[in-house]
Amino acid sequence: MHARPYNFSAGPALLPETVLREAAAEMLDWHGSGLGVMEMSHRGPEFGRILEAAESDLRMLLSIPPAFRVLFMQGGGLGQNAIVPLNLSRGGAIDVVVTGAWSAKSLKEAARYGDVRAVANTAASGHRSIPAPSGWAVRPDASYVHVCTNETIHGVEFHELPDLRALGCDAPLVIDCSSHVASRPIDWSRVGLAFAGAQKNIGPAGLTLVIVHESLLGHALPACPSVFDYAAVAEAKSMLNTPPTWGIYVAGLVFKWLLAQREGGLEGLAAVEARNIRKAALLYDAIDRSQLYVNDVDPAARSRMNVPFRLRDESLNARFLATASERGLVQLKGHKSVGGMRASIYNAMPVEGVLALVDHLRDFEARHG
Amino acid sequence: MHARPYNFSAGPALLPETVLREAAAEMLDWHGSGLGVMEMSHRGPEFGRILEAAESDLRMLLSIPPAFRVLFMQGGGLGQNAIVPLNLSRGGAIDVVVTGAWSAKSLKEAARYGDVRAVANTAASGHRSIPAPSGWAVRPDASYVHVCTNETIHGVEFHELPDLRALGCDAPLVIDCSSHVASRPIDWSRVGLAFAGAQKNIGPAGLTLVIVHESLLGHALPACPSVFDYAAVAEAKSMLNTPPTWGIYVAGLVFKWLLAQREGGLEGLAAVEARNIRKAALLYDAIDRSQLYVNDVDPAARSRMNVPFRLRDESLNARFLATASERGLVQLKGHKSVGGMRASIYNAMPVEGVLALVDHLRDFEARHG
Repeated sequence: MHARPYNFSAGPALLPETVLREAAAEMLDWHGSGLGVMEMSHRGPEFGRILEAAESDLRMLLSIPPAFRVLFMQGGGLGQNAIVPLNLSRGGAIDVVVTGAWSAKSLKEAARYGDVRAVANTAASGHRSIPAPSGWAVRPDASYVHVCTNETIHGVEFHELPDLRALGCDAPLVIDCSSHVASRPIDWSRVGLAFAGAQKNIGPAGLTLVIVHESLLGHALPACPSVFDYAAVAEAKSMLNTPPTWGIYVAGLVFKWLLAQREGGLEGLAAVEARNIRKAALLYDAIDRSQLYVNDVDPAARSRMNVPFRLRDESLNARFLATASERGLVQLKGHKSVGGMRASIYNAMPVEGVLALVDHLRDFEARHG
Repeated sequence: MHARPYNFSAGPALLPETVLREAAAEMLDWHGSGLGVMEMSHRGPEFGRILEAAESDLRMLLSIPPAFRVLFMQGGGLGQNAIVPLNLSRGGAIDVVVTGAWSAKSLKEAARYGDVRAVANTAASGHRSIPAPSGWAVRPDASYVHVCTNETIHGVEFHELPDLRALGCDAPLVIDCSSHVASRPIDWSRVGLAFAGAQKNIGPAGLTLVIVHESLLGHALPACPSVFDYAAVAEAKSMLNTPPTWGIYVAGLVFKWLLAQREGGLEGLAAVEARNIRKAALLYDAIDRSQLYVNDVDPAARSRMNVPFRLRDESLNARFLATASERGLVQLKGHKSVGGMRASIYNAMPVEGVLALVDHLRDFEARHG
């Protein structure tokens, strides 16, 4: 049995054990400097090396083109829901594709800063699919088009990014990829800006990653706080004010861990993606084969990271969670807004953790189904 | 000799060794939960206990009255320079007392959100004193009056908070106490809102503390992002979005460490303050007695936390820093805007560290003065 429980939390979420061990070992003395990372001046050479390595490793991992700037910011995904329109809307039209709870929040927040419109919305059908881009009512004068490429609560994922230019739309695509960043490649030719809270696949809460094409910098509204003006942050190389240094350090350790992954002849992000495909298939197959468990999401839009499911007999929920916990499978309770169960199987969840959950699904059904 | 160097960084700054050891020991398993703090759901019972303890310990430490709300936020002090006026200005008059680089930044940023005025400004004399409140040109219709109670770069500290009501001013006093928070008591009867970046006296960068009287909540401008609306954050008990959980955890360990301090019959914050007074006196006395070192700040306004000083012979600067580093005294270089040296002697700096610096001042002067 695994020494620690398998933690299926949607975020903050599990981190690779090797990363945690490294962070603990270096807590009082980073690389012989005599200083812990939390104690270093952000302007000193030691932290400079940490920041530089984190950015260059991330660029390598995600194949980020040189025309994109990497910003290490604060405020989380919800913060970016305001910071994106403060920087990109110019007070004009903002088009949002609503595919779940997160893009619905983005729509609501953006309304403070421009003329928002939901150009597609799957609410009526319970957010179980990705609407075909050809049907999006994108406006010609949109300042940007926002999509959440993985809905953490509803378990819906874009497996291909929309090609806005093919729709005759020149607006930049903004993707909220908080809950699946670094789990698969990103087609940068279709993206203007990507943002992600760190606390799911990257590191500790409080760090927010923004990857923005340089052509989008420099148009912030007057009301935009300096620390959230992308152009100013880019100009200062994420050091306009003290960045969340510990979060950047841990994220950097995670990036190195991801780059070192190997799977069936693949390496780095390709290996990570292959493993994520395998893990998701194991879990969805177990759910689909059962009589007790249900996942309602269109198979073409099912998230590899967040797998919501429910028991047909909801009176068994508490027993399901209690017996899971006895086996060391924790944080499986679904989000309060949708109920049921949710297994978040981020990059750091080993295949063994998914197999242990599949065993529990089978054993529990055999006993109670 | 001390195993680790004495770190005089202005921030991020040294943390108590016991806190670092505790954080390292609990990295993979907090209190038998099997989860590291970075991996916990912020909505789970474990983090709930961490957050609750951090707030109640801080309330005890600083004797915060019940009418004040404690908010754990993100974005740093520079972020608050925008977030304060977004919440309090109502687009009206904002009065700022400029006593150094930080309040000058606050003045500049607040201009985006209201009609700002520097009601006192010590720039002409090089920011070496605190101007008497009786001379402040405070406006009767000011939405708030901003002071930076400890200027990290210029080494100027308010040793008594201004009594705005005695000046006939009913506006709330806003204090930026980033670099001396938790080093001394705060007279809450004179304060409407206090904010502090954590990375000097409290914990890791990326956590921002806001302590606000409840009467000031609920007046945010429409442009204020939800995650920075004090009323919304207070209502959600700092959980409107995922808070910087690791930062709150480390800050909580620091609060417990501060509460446990003892000094000559005193305990908690009184003990910490007594030790800070002793440390500052040791260092200023050594500077004042020397022929080589100078601190220009009005003795009545000298900071107990940040001690800038310069060598009369500036050609000795590099040698001073190199020989200090050989003795394990690091991060003594002054801020680039003022040059010279700066010793930041926050709560976590032991008396022994200050004594070691005093020895170095004496020895270096004997050799080179």
